[in-house]
Amino acid sequence: MAPHATDSDVEMSHQPSKQHEETVPNQVGDEMATPVNTDVCIIGAGPAGLMLACLLVRFGIRTTVFDERSDQTTVGRADGVQPKTIETMRMLGIGNDLMRLGKKIYDICIWRGSDSVSLTRVGRETHYPDGIVDILEPYILIGHQGMIEKAFLDDLHERGVEVARSYQFTGCQLRSQNKTSVLVQSSYGTAREPRSIEASYLVGCDGAHSSVRNFILEAPPRGSGASVWGVLDGELDTNFPDIWSKTVIFSEQYGSILIIPRERNMTRFYIEIKETASAKDLGEAFVKQRARDILKPYRLDWRSVEWFGKYQVAQRVAAKFTDPSQRLFIAGDASHAHSPKAAQGMNTSVHDTWNLGWKLNLAARGIAKPALLESYELERQKIARDLINFDYEHANQIAGGDADALAKNFRQNIRFISGVGADYAPNVINQGHDVATGAAQPGCNVPPAKATRYIDANPIDIQLDIPVLGQFRVYVFLGDITSSTAQAFLSTLSCAVLSENSVLQQLSEAAEQSYEKCPRPSAPEDVYTNPRSEWTVYLDDVPHLDTKGKTCTEKWLGSVGTSEAVIVNVRPDGYVGSLGRWDTRGFSGSVAAEWLGKYYGEFLQVPKPDLGTL
Amino acid sequence: MAPHATDSDVEMSHQPSKQHEETVPNQVGDEMATPVNTDVCIIGAGPAGLMLACLLVRFGIRTTVFDERSDQTTVGRADGVQPKTIETMRMLGIGNDLMRLGKKIYDICIWRGSDSVSLTRVGRETHYPDGIVDILEPYILIGHQGMIEKAFLDDLHERGVEVARSYQFTGCQLRSQNKTSVLVQSSYGTAREPRSIEASYLVGCDGAHSSVRNFILEAPPRGSGASVWGVLDGELDTNFPDIWSKTVIFSEQYGSILIIPRERNMTRFYIEIKETASAKDLGEAFVKQRARDILKPYRLDWRSVEWFGKYQVAQRVAAKFTDPSQRLFIAGDASHAHSPKAAQGMNTSVHDTWNLGWKLNLAARGIAKPALLESYELERQKIARDLINFDYEHANQIAGGDADALAKNFRQNIRFISGVGADYAPNVINQGHDVATGAAQPGCNVPPAKATRYIDANPIDIQLDIPVLGQFRVYVFLGDITSSTAQAFLSTLSCAVLSENSVLQQLSEAAEQSYEKCPRPSAPEDVYTNPRSEWTVYLDDVPHLDTKGKTCTEKWLGSVGTSEAVIVNVRPDGYVGSLGRWDTRGFSGSVAAEWLGKYYGEFLQVPKPDLGTL
Repeated sequence: MAPHATDSDVEMSHQPSKQHEETVPNQVGDEMATPVNTDVCIIGAGPAGLMLACLLVRFGIRTTVFDERSDQTTVGRADGVQPKTIETMRMLGIGNDLMRLGKKIYDICIWRGSDSVSLTRVGRETHYPDGIVDILEPYILIGHQGMIEKAFLDDLHERGVEVARSYQFTGCQLRSQNKTSVLVQSSYGTAREPRSIEASYLVGCDGAHSSVRNFILEAPPRGSGASVWGVLDGELDTNFPDIWSKTVIFSEQYGSILIIPRERNMTRFYIEIKETASAKDLGEAFVKQRARDILKPYRLDWRSVEWFGKYQVAQRVAAKFTDPSQRLFIAGDASHAHSPKAAQGMNTSVHDTWNLGWKLNLAARGIAKPALLESYELERQKIARDLINFDYEHANQIAGGDADALAKNFRQNIRFISGVGADYAPNVINQGHDVATGAAQPGCNVPPAKATRYIDANPIDIQLDIPVLGQFRVYVFLGDITSSTAQAFLSTLSCAVLSENSVLQQLSEAAEQSYEKCPRPSAPEDVYTNPRSEWTVYLDDVPHLDTKGKTCTEKWLGSVGTSEAVIVNVRPDGYVGSLGRWDTRGFSGSVAAEWLGKYYGEFLQVPKPDLGTL
Repeated sequence: MAPHATDSDVEMSHQPSKQHEETVPNQVGDEMATPVNTDVCIIGAGPAGLMLACLLVRFGIRTTVFDERSDQTTVGRADGVQPKTIETMRMLGIGNDLMRLGKKIYDICIWRGSDSVSLTRVGRETHYPDGIVDILEPYILIGHQGMIEKAFLDDLHERGVEVARSYQFTGCQLRSQNKTSVLVQSSYGTAREPRSIEASYLVGCDGAHSSVRNFILEAPPRGSGASVWGVLDGELDTNFPDIWSKTVIFSEQYGSILIIPRERNMTRFYIEIKETASAKDLGEAFVKQRARDILKPYRLDWRSVEWFGKYQVAQRVAAKFTDPSQRLFIAGDASHAHSPKAAQGMNTSVHDTWNLGWKLNLAARGIAKPALLESYELERQKIARDLINFDYEHANQIAGGDADALAKNFRQNIRFISGVGADYAPNVINQGHDVATGAAQPGCNVPPAKATRYIDANPIDIQLDIPVLGQFRVYVFLGDITSSTAQAFLSTLSCAVLSENSVLQQLSEAAEQSYEKCPRPSAPEDVYTNPRSEWTVYLDDVPHLDTKGKTCTEKWLGSVGTSEAVIVNVRPDGYVGSLGRWDTRGFSGSVAAEWLGKYYGEFLQVPKPDLGTL
């Protein structure tokens, strides 16, 4: 998460709208190419805003990103990329350099010392143990926030979009009678020239002191459990042995410290200062001395310090993530805040917009019913609350010094910490819990699994194989493809889905028309992908030794009988949407087609001419 | 391999030397920065030359690469990267984009048709079956030669070196009485301006029609079994199902064809034309029609054609790969030629210089005895002959149409085809076959294996973990690190190795002095690697499920008893150099230190002041 500034909140300015000032670029370095309107305006180019921009841009939505900083982050700040975030970035093909160059943390060490007992290692464990968390890449990836932001910025650049920097958001207002657009005001550069742009949607990814939030909430969210943290990145000279693991150290006398190994031989120290009333008193020298005290009798010095930051953190969740018109949204630190210790902030933030992005795409195209955008707040507010609850306990236990309690809390929450355990409750897009017999549960991420791609016999990771284009994925599992009833089911299913009365067919046609009008832009590397449908037929025949004991079908569904067919609708963000299960001896595929139509019809629609801005 | 031009050999011009014309750049775009001498001059910027350049540059050797072409390859030519080549590139950290974007071939299909039997698939098999070939990445990676060359060129660029293009090699002569340098002559640009440069070594990577070769051999190598091939890259419109596998098709009437799937939806056809006397008659239309005939009754058309090439191939191996002075060398197609069918050419070529590079580094630093450079020809000529023998049979069987015989030949040679089976005979650097009890055999590549890096608990691939810096790696295996005799062995070994009389210590000091004088240049990404010695302590504790049944020790050595110590010397190119095995209850580590000194002393030396050019 971005550190809180410890000064007071930025003053809000509700400027009157200026009509269509034609000076807002959506590409830096091209300031005279001036769209006066955009589909989505994003305030803030941190991880949450950049994730949203990457998604919308590749889906073909005109996107403008404002950031008040003149340059991107180069050091410090957020740095822990959790396994689910790694998976999400892999799904997007983003961050290859980061994955290669970042430091990987596989284990966690716990040390303890008191007046009577000298500092001792009391535990060393695998951070994400196999069999407890099911993830393809079971480590935390460490790179400074600049490396992470660069991954997103490079991806935007590949599709011709740059962040508009030195733009400070100053206010906004819903424009027309039926509230289908919002006028966004900003000031540009050091001269603070006023600028404005008209957007269909405005998303505030502008951090803990969000200004956009003030247009959604009457009062800023109240925090509880404020604590002060010092954070230091530097290269150490020490004889303490565990600086290459994630390490928690409790000193009865001096408090606790969290050590995170960094890329480029650096080490990060998180230290909580309880006795100081405010972060103002907390300097680099103070934090260094405290770290030395805690690590005694080990020697500790710094060869160099790259970054020092301080946080004053109150745990809080905004009461609303959107306004009643569904034109304004907040995401990331703007909507929730918590301690940095569990390395969750950035990970939760990018998944806020990972959730919002595809919904905004469908809404902007007029294909979404209001229920779809409503699900954003429903789903992500739950996760923010889960996070606060976990964080409160976790931070207390790190500070409290009970190694056993910390280990227990950690083990109980490990799925959640990894990110794969961010489960959504049943709602209009998460249905069918009654037929879910495996780990593919509605509202949950699909578990990683291996399969063989039929067309070219390549073993693939099924959760990564299909490019993220904003589309739902409909997986049909057949227990036995050679069974005649299964084949009949498949062909009646295809016929029914493709018939012109079919809801799915009508929605597909509407989507196709929209994408013809506003196509997805291509990046140079897109020529190397194979998004055609014949590339999405898989055999679940990878040997158990290669899949660590469970095939895709076994993982996702428990089992599928030889005459059974199961359909899993997977949302564009990789979550299970809904499941259906049929015995092909008793049911025709047309039943399944109807079921599909019912599901998608609940939150998607064929746009009426006056809806849909694209 | 680069296709043979079918015109006659380029005329050799033996120009008289011009004294030190100061106009030869070693960096393109910097033509006025003119070193008049260099350590190694490489002729030809194909894969063999570029691999050599990448190695020498990162080892700190001044390197100049001349290429007669004005631009790099963009389409066609070599395209199959075999598993060993993938591993080698991973060892160097080269080609990350290529690995990500290239097409992967996992299986091989065989089809057969005749007058009486319509074209039918007679087999579909895994190309590199698990359990038969032990490789980390069991596929052929496909990308056009430009993608492959770009991987090397990018790596050179990172270290500040560019290929000098539009330079045509015209001749050379050994300069001084004691033959320690060679004057290399070339002509530059369309005006063919004469240029010259003085080099300690000259390496001809200038293809099948090598000009450098003429200064090593009296007569060019004679070929046998000449055949004519047409090669076509394009996007197909076809209903033939197996264009995404490597596919061999035999038609009794029309001959055989080899299909290789390509990146960017393309397909490559290799077709051998037996009845035409020369390649001159072989046009694109002819090849297309022949392919259509062979694929009947399937429909076949081309949406686009990216590249058409023709080859006239004679199988041959040069009698000498170096001259008596050990100042001139040839590598790659300059030293051997064969059919393109088994996708071996480029793979063999880059491993020629993978073998030569580290030897030249040590020779240029004066640390190598003559025996080290002598081993280049010994080792690589054997591989070239193995390749010719295999290729002769393999090509005959592809052309001959006996699917069973082809499959058998293929299975027998699969280790060799993958590249990991390029085994060298015993010589001064490959010793100790008597104590080799596992797959780590002297003169063979170390098998891939997993281990846990002790310092940060990261699971790693041991064959890839240590950066390639031109150094030998000495792996010490202990059956039980807690055994007191093992610990005593380890400490007496360290003391003996570090004592000032130790051969290893003297060689290390000589190397250190040389690297201080001519250091390895750093690339921006080097800050992310950890080459320090504490990063090379490993635990062989990865669960059998993750290692597919065999730990590193089991793979490499069979077994190591609890009181045993085994030392494996691994050459800079990842080949096993020698092995020693001791019972630590009976032997002190000083015995092993002596053994180490004896091994390294046979081919390394402390440079005398008048030797060594660095």
